[in-house]
Amino acid sequence: MHTLTVAIPHMPAGQYSVRIGTGLLREAYLLLESECAGRTAFVVTDANVVAAGHLQTLIGDRDVGSFVIDPPGEPSKNMQTIAAILEAMEDASLGRDTVIVALGGGTVGDIAGFAASVFKRGVAVVQVPTTTVSQADSAIGGKTGVDSSLSKNAFGTFWHPAAVYIDVAVLATLDDLQYRAGLVESVKHGLIADRGYFEYFEANIDAILQRDLAVLERVALANCRIKAAVVAEDPTEKNKRRILNYGHTIGHAVESASDYTLLHGQAVAIGIVAAGLIEQRMGLSRDGRLERIRALLGRLQMPLTIPPQCRREDILAAMARDKKAVSGRPKLVLLDEIGSTLCRNGQFAHDVPPAIIDKTIEELSR
Amino acid sequence: MHTLTVAIPHMPAGQYSVRIGTGLLREAYLLLESECAGRTAFVVTDANVVAAGHLQTLIGDRDVGSFVIDPPGEPSKNMQTIAAILEAMEDASLGRDTVIVALGGGTVGDIAGFAASVFKRGVAVVQVPTTTVSQADSAIGGKTGVDSSLSKNAFGTFWHPAAVYIDVAVLATLDDLQYRAGLVESVKHGLIADRGYFEYFEANIDAILQRDLAVLERVALANCRIKAAVVAEDPTEKNKRRILNYGHTIGHAVESASDYTLLHGQAVAIGIVAAGLIEQRMGLSRDGRLERIRALLGRLQMPLTIPPQCRREDILAAMARDKKAVSGRPKLVLLDEIGSTLCRNGQFAHDVPPAIIDKTIEELSR
Repeated sequence: MHTLTVAIPHMPAGQYSVRIGTGLLREAYLLLESECAGRTAFVVTDANVVAAGHLQTLIGDRDVGSFVIDPPGEPSKNMQTIAAILEAMEDASLGRDTVIVALGGGTVGDIAGFAASVFKRGVAVVQVPTTTVSQADSAIGGKTGVDSSLSKNAFGTFWHPAAVYIDVAVLATLDDLQYRAGLVESVKHGLIADRGYFEYFEANIDAILQRDLAVLERVALANCRIKAAVVAEDPTEKNKRRILNYGHTIGHAVESASDYTLLHGQAVAIGIVAAGLIEQRMGLSRDGRLERIRALLGRLQMPLTIPPQCRREDILAAMARDKKAVSGRPKLVLLDEIGSTLCRNGQFAHDVPPAIIDKTIEELSR
Repeated sequence: MHTLTVAIPHMPAGQYSVRIGTGLLREAYLLLESECAGRTAFVVTDANVVAAGHLQTLIGDRDVGSFVIDPPGEPSKNMQTIAAILEAMEDASLGRDTVIVALGGGTVGDIAGFAASVFKRGVAVVQVPTTTVSQADSAIGGKTGVDSSLSKNAFGTFWHPAAVYIDVAVLATLDDLQYRAGLVESVKHGLIADRGYFEYFEANIDAILQRDLAVLERVALANCRIKAAVVAEDPTEKNKRRILNYGHTIGHAVESASDYTLLHGQAVAIGIVAAGLIEQRMGLSRDGRLERIRALLGRLQMPLTIPPQCRREDILAAMARDKKAVSGRPKLVLLDEIGSTLCRNGQFAHDVPPAIIDKTIEELSR
């Protein structure tokens, strides 16, 4: 088992641990009992995770309260689900000495973290991510949220977990498309912060696609190191943390315009390609990196253009509603080279001429 | 105009200002424009406040987005209202550069603060309290919340305001019962922290009941000083801040058991008397202070016993659900003498033998 520490400045707790291993889920409850001694556990999970047997593996014969999100995924990612979880916790007479265990993918983690942050003005949450996307990305960093009727993650909080337990063995049973789409966040991490990791990922893509556990542990460790370093520097996304949004500004808008028929990772793959085209148009990319990136995303069988069901005006409207938009215009994170983002005047998100954005979306929509 | 600064340790902002004056509401929007420059204002208020003309006084001819809570008060203090406000803000295409102006009493402040804390993972809120209870208490300190179907303020966050504007002149139009009930928090402040203020309040009770603006400014200033000092020492209620809950543990339970037919201040008055009786039974009160406290609460025409509509078993069940309860038993804040709370082994909330609590509730229910 590997253990990493994530520092969280400005927070009274100061830090938390991320544990990474193979078969960790079976030991996770014992770990929880020692790390959150004296707290009553309450599991938030979803119907898919229960069906995969992970809830059973986690709790065994113990009598632990739980809330099962059903249907799983985006359709339940709303304020109504938050209210239902909170009422269920209240019915169970839970107090401030509660620890919510978020067992599942990104949606479960976002919902459970949000519920934890507002129950009795905040209780602990331990993230136990079970998908490639949540293990690489959403379980670490303290972002929580649900969707509005208009946009994704419109409502939520910053609420850091008390601990994160990552078991790469649970990925063995993950649906193939979800598995591959979740790896896009790993590609993104290499692109924004670590050329060596990007090249390791390229070199080991076959083992990764075959779900080789030893390689997956190394991938998980690299993801967590990169994310932890960025989050520690800027926990509430004032500036540097925005680099994690590489490919996400247009990606989120495409995801929304697809009415969530695209998975997050698929939409972000398109967003990464869009960012690459924008970099070319702005004269920032003369190293031919976009072809290399396209090739790797292609190995993950991700879409590299905007599918016909996404209307251009819907994409632009969604961008105007972006959380980070100021005066209706989001700024974009751009690469300097593979492994490094562009920083100008201390800023990591940049204004892009609207004409370049429009042209890029048009080109990708053909 | 008086200006006080509230320090908030562990928070990036570090502090905020409280401004207190007579007729301040008319200048508040200009103040807001200078203190929150570059942010788009969105007012959250309620139908009573609009009817009293305060929204009009605040915004004048300006075109400012708003959400009017209707019906006002506890019936709307729930997750559905939070969701409705958030969706209204999303419909108005608001971004992170928003400042919510909470114009109203405690319910408006709690709801608006909660909405601000979860919109796009947190936007600024300026509290403009218009009632005795919110000016003395809820507008300062950063607690937000709504009720569950079982208990009050069960869901919420700690979210400090960017500024607080207190205009004592708006109290002139406040309903008489609400006016008097809100003053119970002022009595509490004197009891827990400032004997001199308690005696000033006693000596000036006639002027206070006649709503003498000069006296009300002094009262507001004393309230804010006391609350600010406590909150600065312990912003997220780990220990010292609990003294603000004096009279509230039983008070909240009585309020809940009355099905909210009692106003918060009425229930807290009963809770203060209950705490006084418990102090007597625990041998902590040999100075005859309870009679003096009863006399002052009597001048405010507050109930001093538990009314028949509150069932004892409902009160005890509500106490078991208290946010600060651990293992179903809340700890109580107790007075050492007027102006000072009991602190033992560094703790400000104390275990009280269940038999004493039961006996006290029985005695007050006769």
